Amino acid sequence: MPRAHNFNPGPAALPVQVLEEVQAELVDYAGNGLSVLEMSHRAPSFIEIYEKAEETLRDVLGIPGDYDVLFLSGGATLEFAALAMNLMRTGRAGYVVSGHFSKVAMDEGARYGEAVCLATGEGSNFSAIPTKAEIDSAIVAEVAAGGLDYVHICQNNTIYGTMFHELPETDDVPLVADVSSCFLSLPLDVERYGVIYAGAQKNAGPAGVTVVICRHDLIAQGPALGICPAYLDWRSQAMKQSMLNTPNTFGIYVCGKVFEWVKEMGGLEAMEARNRKKASMLYDVLDQSKLFRGVARPQDRSIANVTFTTNIPELDREFVSEAARAGLVGLGGHRLVGGMRASIYNAVPKASVERLCGLMKEFEELHAGSSSTE
Amino acid sequence: MPRAHNFNPGPAALPVQVLEEVQAELVDYAGNGLSVLEMSHRAPSFIEIYEKAEETLRDVLGIPGDYDVLFLSGGATLEFAALAMNLMRTGRAGYVVSGHFSKVAMDEGARYGEAVCLATGEGSNFSAIPTKAEIDSAIVAEVAAGGLDYVHICQNNTIYGTMFHELPETDDVPLVADVSSCFLSLPLDVERYGVIYAGAQKNAGPAGVTVVICRHDLIAQGPALGICPAYLDWRSQAMKQSMLNTPNTFGIYVCGKVFEWVKEMGGLEAMEARNRKKASMLYDVLDQSKLFRGVARPQDRSIANVTFTTNIPELDREFVSEAARAGLVGLGGHRLVGGMRASIYNAVPKASVERLCGLMKEFEELHAGSSSTE
Repeated sequence: MPRAHNFNPGPAALPVQVLEEVQAELVDYAGNGLSVLEMSHRAPSFIEIYEKAEETLRDVLGIPGDYDVLFLSGGATLEFAALAMNLMRTGRAGYVVSGHFSKVAMDEGARYGEAVCLATGEGSNFSAIPTKAEIDSAIVAEVAAGGLDYVHICQNNTIYGTMFHELPETDDVPLVADVSSCFLSLPLDVERYGVIYAGAQKNAGPAGVTVVICRHDLIAQGPALGICPAYLDWRSQAMKQSMLNTPNTFGIYVCGKVFEWVKEMGGLEAMEARNRKKASMLYDVLDQSKLFRGVARPQDRSIANVTFTTNIPELDREFVSEAARAGLVGLGGHRLVGGMRASIYNAVPKASVERLCGLMKEFEELHAGSSSTE
Repeated sequence: MPRAHNFNPGPAALPVQVLEEVQAELVDYAGNGLSVLEMSHRAPSFIEIYEKAEETLRDVLGIPGDYDVLFLSGGATLEFAALAMNLMRTGRAGYVVSGHFSKVAMDEGARYGEAVCLATGEGSNFSAIPTKAEIDSAIVAEVAAGGLDYVHICQNNTIYGTMFHELPETDDVPLVADVSSCFLSLPLDVERYGVIYAGAQKNAGPAGVTVVICRHDLIAQGPALGICPAYLDWRSQAMKQSMLNTPNTFGIYVCGKVFEWVKEMGGLEAMEARNRKKASMLYDVLDQSKLFRGVARPQDRSIANVTFTTNIPELDREFVSEAARAGLVGLGGHRLVGGMRASIYNAVPKASVERLCGLMKEFEELHAGSSSTE
């Protein structure tokens, strides 16, 4: 069977090289006579896997020594709660609502304290990110009004296909970012953040691993709230190398291989260049099309998730079906947006994007009579 | 490389047949052109994997229709907190402390309400389980004193090698059991419990999946406490087939294969017979030995984890090293107990246990001069 062109939003495409290595080692890892799936998390062979994964990630992302790296479980959704329980020391934090998940993050924060909405893109159905000027002035005002324990953003909005291209100015307030769908898509200046976290299932590995990177001084005193479950206590997890209990050993092993692959491919600068190239190819087709149009406001477009539509629901469905028949999978848009979404993470080859662009042009020629209702 | 004799306490041995199937399908699952590791959790192909895993588990364990089955993450440790947040409706629950993890469960419960210790085996360093009479009368007394939202036990104590062979009488109070290390080792009468939960990494699959089985009426009103993170809301997870967010897709897939294997091997009665046979072989050697002795009180012995010692720390270490050289791995006891522990879960073949018994006898002959200080 030829490889599918995998545009899934996550779990998503992984590098074939990684899959083949995992396959080769699946029954017997490195002559240990057992699988990584069967290996104790306390065994030297697994500790080596774990430490190498962390070291490679630190190297690739340029994580300073005063940041802890955790490999947890439960996805960003569980970290929405962990974040508030660990860091809401005065009980008041700011949230930028730029999409569905950032709204969920804020609602989760509101269980544990005052979750202040700094700005929202809801008016545009999240096709636009609130402007930096709006966010920055809201932060200044809210710090003056009552202080903020942190400012939370969702840096790339998987569902809407938008992305922060500039970070807000948070001054002394720690910036916390859910970077799930742009993690390892491009370099990040880690020192600009207090906490970065990401579900692995976009660019970093399989579902079931959540990477949390936090500045040590923010967690050094332990969780802000005594009701924080031990598992979600970032300080304890940092002290125990994410092994307060048994972690997702196999998931961490696969992530480690993906980190290695990113490094071999030239690191995050190379990833960004590839991803920008793939995104441009699609946005160029959209901007020239008379049938398709992009959903996100051009200046807020994501380099990881490209959302588009014909504005005719039946035609959108037909396109998705036709694409699936041609071996392009995962192109259906999220129900909150409709239309199509192409997730073009690191492991999606340029050839898959070329194939999608070709298909869009063919489809447009075939439906020259239909026109967008825009 | 020949297969190691894998006595790890978890992550632990998996059936070779399962590993080989996973390996064969790793790069391309069932002609989909992609790996399960890359498959959307919303894709029909994954929904099929999920539903079959649940269906097989329901079949194998005989789970009645009024119980929900969840496949979550974070291990039993995270469920210690989830349990209290979901079920502590009056704010008072009872815990039997029969080992390290049941103590941790109680401490975690105490974050959210009154966690009453019903009985403890601490006096014997947990080599004995509190008696049924002691536990039953404590339950009656505590129900009268202030009521109990649930009674919690850890049914098999991995570290100490003990196991409940009779369940406490809880009357109308829901019995909640962490069955991590005896899950699928033997049949369970599910209707005796309100909630059963287990980390998968002993008998059910790889680390990173936690199975939670709960009687629906107990969770139908939603969590008892508003501070329960959305991810840990058992009702929401039940309504969404464990997909409130992206679950550990690959882990669930491997668990499904293990459930199939259990079924093919004759189900839980057959598993129990095999496990009792393996355990007897080891306990017989221990009972006849002049060098080794079992740690657990005979009537409380586990059929999953066999703890033993020479009572001479250097000799214990020598045995563990010698065993490792002979390809028997994972035999070191937990630091809280010392000595040795053989975890003989479903996928540990009888041949591995025979090899261990043989090695113990050889070691004893070699050290005929040494004697236990018991």
